[in-house]
Amino acid sequence: MAEDMNLLDVIYNCRAMRRLDSREVPEELLVKLIDAANQAPSGSNMQNGRWLVVRDPKIKQQLAELNRIGVEAYMGFNADLSNGLPHQSADKRSKMINAVLWQMEHMHEIPALVIACLEFGTKVNQDMISTNGGSIWPGIQNLLLTARALGLGATPTTLALSNYQAVSEVLNLPDTMAACCLIPVGYPTGKFGPVSRKPTSEIMCFEQWQ
Amino acid sequence: MAEDMNLLDVIYNCRAMRRLDSREVPEELLVKLIDAANQAPSGSNMQNGRWLVVRDPKIKQQLAELNRIGVEAYMGFNADLSNGLPHQSADKRSKMINAVLWQMEHMHEIPALVIACLEFGTKVNQDMISTNGGSIWPGIQNLLLTARALGLGATPTTLALSNYQAVSEVLNLPDTMAACCLIPVGYPTGKFGPVSRKPTSEIMCFEQWQ
Repeated sequence: MAEDMNLLDVIYNCRAMRRLDSREVPEELLVKLIDAANQAPSGSNMQNGRWLVVRDPKIKQQLAELNRIGVEAYMGFNADLSNGLPHQSADKRSKMINAVLWQMEHMHEIPALVIACLEFGTKVNQDMISTNGGSIWPGIQNLLLTARALGLGATPTTLALSNYQAVSEVLNLPDTMAACCLIPVGYPTGKFGPVSRKPTSEIMCFEQWQ
Repeated sequence: MAEDMNLLDVIYNCRAMRRLDSREVPEELLVKLIDAANQAPSGSNMQNGRWLVVRDPKIKQQLAELNRIGVEAYMGFNADLSNGLPHQSADKRSKMINAVLWQMEHMHEIPALVIACLEFGTKVNQDMISTNGGSIWPGIQNLLLTARALGLGATPTTLALSNYQAVSEVLNLPDTMAACCLIPVGYPTGKFGPVSRKPTSEIMCFEQWQ
């Protein structure tokens, strides 16, 4: 059973899955994802991560529109996105961009949009959000890994969340809470596969950087 | 074999392990941790996470001193730290603080200090570091989970890194790189066990926040 996948198999086979089927995801599995996310560490053990799971078509539509604005602005500012990188060929980069655009067009049809939030207990400012990433991103990674083990596709995105005011209104967030990441979740239409990363020799050193 | 632990068993039993033995960790395992960390996603797939593994006693001593300054300042600013929280009793909170203090006193003896960094390709400013948490913390979580599966203790800490200039000098970081998290790694002296977290009912909602 996929749920019994061992940790390292999950870690090495957890590709960003953006093209998702519109087929419903059982509520039990969605709760399982959030419960796994909630086990991650947080700064000073504040346990201030909060999780919204949006399935309502009207709210998904509103988030999809905010995402479209974010993605189009991003693409406009980064016209060379499909040029490739030293570690990702132009062909692979183009495929990634196409998947991002597919997701933009279909976000309202994706069965569940998970929003990872932080609760600060006091009125939020941008500085608080950006300096508390360590209290929410470990949980997001737990969620991505668990989705993979359950046969669900998931990818962390942030472009829908640039307009904090609009996002807070759509999600009814109090002014003490901030949305940090949107993770579309559903059954993937493509195949899971190994991730492709730079070799360890390029990204690690012993003792001091060289 | 611990390495074959299934994902969810690891996620639910990955406590912060701060009291670590001074016994050496085989280099092969340290590389395994970094390789697992390197599989995590990064914003726009930039793969800009970089990892330092410090075993050199002199450099560990310098980091231990920076950590002491950070921990003492933090304790001073948060004198009520051991008062307990709605989700953590005063007794458990005191135990956590004692473990943080133990780690402060023994950091130079811990076999490996892993420093998770970001490479920006251009001169770093504080804003870049704080808005790119999503490109490094997922990898840190991969590392913590993998450490657990390998029987190693690890905990993410940031208090040693407040003085960016000093940290960069100690680690010989170019001005395009920033240290985001320090993770002491070693064999735990205590026992692994389940993490204790708020119930899902307190941290998740469907559709909108209520």
